[in-house]
Amino acid sequence: MSHAEPLYPVPAEEPNAPEDWLESFRNVRAVTEQLCSPLQTEDYVIQSMDDVSPPKWHLAHVSWFFEAFLLKPFLRGYVPLNEQYDHLFNSYYETHSTPFPRASRGILSRPTVEDIYRYRHYVDEAMGLLLSNPPAQHSRTIAERACLGIQHEQQHQELLAMDIKHILAQNPMGALYSDALKTPPRQRPVGMGWRRYEGGLVSIGVDDTSADFAFDNERPAHREYLEPFELATRPVTNQEYVQFMEQGGYHDPAFWLSDGWQLLKQTRWEAPLYWQRRDGHWWHFTLTGWKPVDPHAPVCHVSYYEAEAFARWAGERLPTETEWEHAATFTRNWNGHFLEDGYLQPVAPEPPTEFQRGLPLQLFGDVWEWTGSAYHPYPGFQALPGSLGEYNGKFMSGQMVLRGGCCATPASHFRPTYRNFFPPSARWAFSGFRLAREAL
Amino acid sequence: MSHAEPLYPVPAEEPNAPEDWLESFRNVRAVTEQLCSPLQTEDYVIQSMDDVSPPKWHLAHVSWFFEAFLLKPFLRGYVPLNEQYDHLFNSYYETHSTPFPRASRGILSRPTVEDIYRYRHYVDEAMGLLLSNPPAQHSRTIAERACLGIQHEQQHQELLAMDIKHILAQNPMGALYSDALKTPPRQRPVGMGWRRYEGGLVSIGVDDTSADFAFDNERPAHREYLEPFELATRPVTNQEYVQFMEQGGYHDPAFWLSDGWQLLKQTRWEAPLYWQRRDGHWWHFTLTGWKPVDPHAPVCHVSYYEAEAFARWAGERLPTETEWEHAATFTRNWNGHFLEDGYLQPVAPEPPTEFQRGLPLQLFGDVWEWTGSAYHPYPGFQALPGSLGEYNGKFMSGQMVLRGGCCATPASHFRPTYRNFFPPSARWAFSGFRLAREAL
Amino acid sequence: MSHAEPLYPVPAEEPNAPEDWLESFRNVRAVTEQLCSPLQTEDYVIQSMDDVSPPKWHLAHVSWFFEAFLLKPFLRGYVPLNEQYDHLFNSYYETHSTPFPRASRGILSRPTVEDIYRYRHYVDEAMGLLLSNPPAQHSRTIAERACLGIQHEQQHQELLAMDIKHILAQNPMGALYSDALKTPPRQRPVGMGWRRYEGGLVSIGVDDTSADFAFDNERPAHREYLEPFELATRPVTNQEYVQFMEQGGYHDPAFWLSDGWQLLKQTRWEAPLYWQRRDGHWWHFTLTGWKPVDPHAPVCHVSYYEAEAFARWAGERLPTETEWEHAATFTRNWNGHFLEDGYLQPVAPEPPTEFQRGLPLQLFGDVWEWTGSAYHPYPGFQALPGSLGEYNGKFMSGQMVLRGGCCATPASHFRPTYRNFFPPSARWAFSGFRLAREAL
Amino acid sequence: MSHAEPLYPVPAEEPNAPEDWLESFRNVRAVTEQLCSPLQTEDYVIQSMDDVSPPKWHLAHVSWFFEAFLLKPFLRGYVPLNEQYDHLFNSYYETHSTPFPRASRGILSRPTVEDIYRYRHYVDEAMGLLLSNPPAQHSRTIAERACLGIQHEQQHQELLAMDIKHILAQNPMGALYSDALKTPPRQRPVGMGWRRYEGGLVSIGVDDTSADFAFDNERPAHREYLEPFELATRPVTNQEYVQFMEQGGYHDPAFWLSDGWQLLKQTRWEAPLYWQRRDGHWWHFTLTGWKPVDPHAPVCHVSYYEAEAFARWAGERLPTETEWEHAATFTRNWNGHFLEDGYLQPVAPEPPTEFQRGLPLQLFGDVWEWTGSAYHPYPGFQALPGSLGEYNGKFMSGQMVLRGGCCATPASHFRPTYRNFFPPSARWAFSGFRLAREAL
Repeated sequence: MSHAEPLYPVPAEEPNAPEDWLESFRNVRAVTEQLCSPLQTEDYVIQSMDDVSPPKWHLAHVSWFFEAFLLKPFLRGYVPLNEQYDHLFNSYYETHSTPFPRASRGILSRPTVEDIYRYRHYVDEAMGLLLSNPPAQHSRTIAERACLGIQHEQQHQELLAMDIKHILAQNPMGALYSDALKTPPRQRPVGMGWRRYEGGLVSIGVDDTSADFAFDNERPAHREYLEPFELATRPVTNQEYVQFMEQGGYHDPAFWLSDGWQLLKQTRWEAPLYWQRRDGHWWHFTLTGWKPVDPHAPVCHVSYYEAEAFARWAGERLPTETEWEHAATFTRNWNGHFLEDGYLQPVAPEPPTEFQRGLPLQLFGDVWEWTGSAYHPYPGFQALPGSLGEYNGKFMSGQMVLRGGCCATPASHFRPTYRNFFPPSARWAFSGFRLAREAL
Repeated sequence: MSHAEPLYPVPAEEPNAPEDWLESFRNVRAVTEQLCSPLQTEDYVIQSMDDVSPPKWHLAHVSWFFEAFLLKPFLRGYVPLNEQYDHLFNSYYETHSTPFPRASRGILSRPTVEDIYRYRHYVDEAMGLLLSNPPAQHSRTIAERACLGIQHEQQHQELLAMDIKHILAQNPMGALYSDALKTPPRQRPVGMGWRRYEGGLVSIGVDDTSADFAFDNERPAHREYLEPFELATRPVTNQEYVQFMEQGGYHDPAFWLSDGWQLLKQTRWEAPLYWQRRDGHWWHFTLTGWKPVDPHAPVCHVSYYEAEAFARWAGERLPTETEWEHAATFTRNWNGHFLEDGYLQPVAPEPPTEFQRGLPLQLFGDVWEWTGSAYHPYPGFQALPGSLGEYNGKFMSGQMVLRGGCCATPASHFRPTYRNFFPPSARWAFSGFRLAREAL
Repeated sequence: MSHAEPLYPVPAEEPNAPEDWLESFRNVRAVTEQLCSPLQTEDYVIQSMDDVSPPKWHLAHVSWFFEAFLLKPFLRGYVPLNEQYDHLFNSYYETHSTPFPRASRGILSRPTVEDIYRYRHYVDEAMGLLLSNPPAQHSRTIAERACLGIQHEQQHQELLAMDIKHILAQNPMGALYSDALKTPPRQRPVGMGWRRYEGGLVSIGVDDTSADFAFDNERPAHREYLEPFELATRPVTNQEYVQFMEQGGYHDPAFWLSDGWQLLKQTRWEAPLYWQRRDGHWWHFTLTGWKPVDPHAPVCHVSYYEAEAFARWAGERLPTETEWEHAATFTRNWNGHFLEDGYLQPVAPEPPTEFQRGLPLQLFGDVWEWTGSAYHPYPGFQALPGSLGEYNGKFMSGQMVLRGGCCATPASHFRPTYRNFFPPSARWAFSGFRLAREAL
Repeated sequence: MSHAEPLYPVPAEEPNAPEDWLESFRNVRAVTEQLCSPLQTEDYVIQSMDDVSPPKWHLAHVSWFFEAFLLKPFLRGYVPLNEQYDHLFNSYYETHSTPFPRASRGILSRPTVEDIYRYRHYVDEAMGLLLSNPPAQHSRTIAERACLGIQHEQQHQELLAMDIKHILAQNPMGALYSDALKTPPRQRPVGMGWRRYEGGLVSIGVDDTSADFAFDNERPAHREYLEPFELATRPVTNQEYVQFMEQGGYHDPAFWLSDGWQLLKQTRWEAPLYWQRRDGHWWHFTLTGWKPVDPHAPVCHVSYYEAEAFARWAGERLPTETEWEHAATFTRNWNGHFLEDGYLQPVAPEPPTEFQRGLPLQLFGDVWEWTGSAYHPYPGFQALPGSLGEYNGKFMSGQMVLRGGCCATPASHFRPTYRNFFPPSARWAFSGFRLAREAL
């Protein structure tokens, strides 16, 4: 699937038909199983903290999504494999049915991993029937929901990578996910420069006439006003972050938001998640095991509080999501790394070519970049109808927006208008940040 | 003190001198004590929940503010009354000294109420000396900080009203604050209309050349772009809110943000704070005791989650703070009620006069209005220097902005650019809301 | 009131009549008020932890006890001063009415201290009427309950001393209760010896034919078998306890019960409650302020876990309550200190006289002594009838028995069969311990 | 393995040699694996509450016990399979090494089930070598510890049954353990009679001269005095317990210990663990799935609080552990059911034969019987030396003693002096109870 492939048919003159989604559906389903293929049966079962779901739960939930929103309403004669799965694998759609309690996903030994793969293939087969031979009067809805279900499963591919990393990291023995991942090359350091943007009245978000897929939270396109600003030409690196740590960053309340400082005192954070000090050097847990921290790679697994504290310490700030998206519209080069690149960790940037000089590097890929913007509805936001309205809209409080995709995001899933969001305390996403400042 | 009195000297050509603040200082100090005068000694000691501070703590803390930021640095030969007060009455200035733990303010029986009044008068006397005869080289800083200290104490006047209400409400016997408060007149209902605003590129916030006082979080003035919108001509009333309740508002997850729904299931909220059902009618606790709910008064003591749920139920939304402030710049009539009006509860609006028809009523006063905007720094925000930088900036995460002042806000403290903020779960402020919607 | 005064009329041939209790009633009520007389109004309101009750609550609750169990059932025409007090001041009698939540006693500012003293005197007056002129058919019940109410109020006298100490200790300024307390004299050290008891079949508890008052939990008298054992001739001292601390007592899990070790890791206990290290010396908070720890006084304010850990460290054990009571039957000399002695802190023992040599010192008074016995019903235990059955019986799980009374126990309230009990984690009682061991 | 097989060699004239334990060792190891054989890999990983351990953890921990206390100290040249297992599978021996946090046992996916079986077999082989060819100078210690390790593994067999049941019960789908278990036969009801015991001075516990194995907590034998008492001839049945429930047992505080009542209000218990009301009948989860409750089987999965409340409601009490053990010395017939009987649930008693009339039925087996005795050291108790001293002694606070063994206890592991113990709130053991009362 190429990066530019249009996915969302809604307003196109000739919208995609259900059968057009069949290949994408099969590809995405296969990628999910490939991601899990290195796991031991035991790995599939673990919920290492409330935010994490067992891999087998992910595998079932994305299948449930197709079942609940496509097979049950539209496939004539469809008989669910197991009626209780509707309760077990509903994530948070309260208006659909009572979801099984999130924090208890890790105490379910049954259905087994094998049962769940059987469920997947049962759903695959039924979806094949539905997409190949859709009832004409529902054709458009089926096509739209098929597309949404595919996007949804891609989101869970990234979540799987995050959750598997967290699960394996709990193990004091340092469990390995796979040694088939690519090893990041060492790079020479790339200095951090600033690029100026003039701002003014800018357009943000996805137009309703766009033929490309976008979530409801990226819509509608609307105008915002930006003062001139500058954006760093690359994310903050591990080396820079270590400097912050060494200069007492975690010990001076002056740099911290009040909530962040309270949390830090409780958790005793001293470094990003997955970092450990050994014999005077920083190591971190990766999906290929414990490795020395690469000084020139983007810092990763930091919370919003840590990103914000670094920015204050550096005398700068984080960009707003409007600034970020505006800058992204000028950025054509996708020089960062995504899931398909096969690293599953952020990678130090190559020194820029002549043509890249002064342009923002790694704006897309490698690490999600915390912005200074709280997650909120765009003006004119309309949630999807019915239970699908719970997809995004009900999370618009208490979370911050991240932009840019990461090393675990499928590239075919990403677009510059994409809005990711996490609570400011979250660290298990592949989250880093880039600095911004007022332009003089 | 009249409403329009300019308070902030910073950029004025001829800034106020310290001595110009002496009268304001004395007035504000007197108002605080007058607010507490109906209390029993026992009332001063209680911390009825972590968010509430004992009234005696407020009395001491506002005095500490003058001591820490004015007397100690600038009054030659000043000897503190008690060295330990610096620890006990520091609220949250981590860079100044270690604050006494917030949640433990209610276990301090000493210093006694009498001791604390003695401390107040000791500070009053020293402040009189300092403001009357300020060291010339610090004159400007002293004037600025005196002004800030006065504003700070006015903020605590509102907090005192909120906290006293919460403290007295704990008592199953229905303790009375004062029967000297004014009784709201009954009013005929006023229908809710909509006023249209064209939006466009608007200016928001306080200009650095303004001679009026404003907090750092209201600065700097900057431009934002608004699509056309409509704003309700009055806040949502108790009657309308009861309708929401009766139609299952608290029982249908479709209306609620996810965090709000989780909270509601834990807390079993069924109505606004301080409401009770008795014999088929709703009563609520006020500072004059338990009273029947006035159907035409603005609903009050609701959280952001409840306000947002009501708006979804009504098919509308909350305004952003930009929309709100933009609308406020067209509003000259302060027809709502403030502390000085002597009700200490929101009051039903009088039917509009011919001249008010179609204009927003009670935009200022009665209830703080939840906006849909998370509290964030304005572009170009600069925190105050030194420990005073902790005043506002470090709270810019996890909170929502409220606008408009309330029945417990000193009118002399309020201005249309004022940004109040609370976590979305908070209900003990005098918080209500007003609806907004896209203009067609 | 002399130590030997008989209090409980139940089985006496000529039981006490109600009027016989009038003087005791008045004396006890006066002592309670005298105990509180040094307090500031603010001190009366504080609940410094869930286990502590505000002093004004104690004052009201002991009055409620007389009202609920004597005045309402037996005083014709009695009208309660305030109907709501029955809810507010019921401690834990679930079968009587719903008690006000224990952990919220400290958020009630009203009724005020003055109101509560008014309530006391109202009850005093009514009790005067009832006891002077009791209805003949209820005379015996009234006499029994009067006696129980007096005993109950005496228990709360000790609780008041414990709670006041805890409340004042929260204050970083070191609040003083009273400087009218007696100062303990310095004493030469008294070595710890061992006294042997042969055991065998011994009688424990209070016989139902006894004319003296005893709680239901001290009854009935029954036989138990004891192997020969030895009991230390005095409690463990501060000096000995410091030695335990200095030899790593708080850092070696080998000495600790599992629950104790978990608790210690959470609480980071390093010393008894109220102790602080200053410039290389141990100080502790007393009701006369911060004082250096007296090396020869009994260690106090330790939990059962700490007492048990010390005993393991010392290679000994704690006595069972049967051993303790058996030893106490041989002990006539009340050489320890009680409330009436006016210290309100444990005092170092005087060197024994010729006649005391080899006898246990301070078996009665100074510190309650943790025993190794869980609190349980004696064989044949019968709880009091009705709601009074909740007085003792329902606490017979999860608590350990302490014996011997302390410096805050009224001597007139104490007897050698007295069973006190606290959870093994409690430290705010005046609790110490004495060692025991098997006799060879 | 027959019931009477002597296991503990300590004081025997000709103590067992290490090689004498080889067959027992192999048998017990095989039984453990047989117990787990019906499990799916996923079942092995789950920790369904803090008290439960994942089955694979049990499998590893019992092996660790042999490794830590036998192989490492005594098998020359022994190389552990994996050095990190010492940390991961140490349960609570703080003086041996830092145990992996108990509540986190369920977030370890590695070592896998297969790894752990490999570990078991590695230990089996090494144990075979050690027991077959023990170093002469350590022969006695090796024999003693081999015996202890075997007993230890048998304890974990029962824990495995309890934990597996709890794990499977979490599943709303009602997961099945095995349908190869025996089905209890329906029985006619057996009335509850009372048997009188005269008491007096009785001997309790295990004599140090006994050649049979017993834990340190059963020692030493000692005398206690008992008043005459009566013991019910069978445990309380489900039918009797339902009567308690139907007569408001869970709703009247008069029956409950204070701690129990608080817990009940929090947990909203309405019935024993694993019970569910369906269409007017009570069902419960068993290891063979959901079944109707058998009215004549002993009630099971109740806490101490529930047992005690039932006894108060019935006007009786629970026996002390001394009474229970004394009665057990007269009981020769083991007419209850153990692990080997193959039910893994308590079974209704057969009507007594002529010879059994008036004797206590099911005193041994079916359900552990809560006693009214807190778990405490016997007079003269000596913990085992070294880290093994943590085996029992450090749990002697906050727990109640249960007696009699249950349907999941290996019969070869049980003896009448056996003391089991759990916190009073625990319900996941196979715990029921039998009534007692004073004899007239």
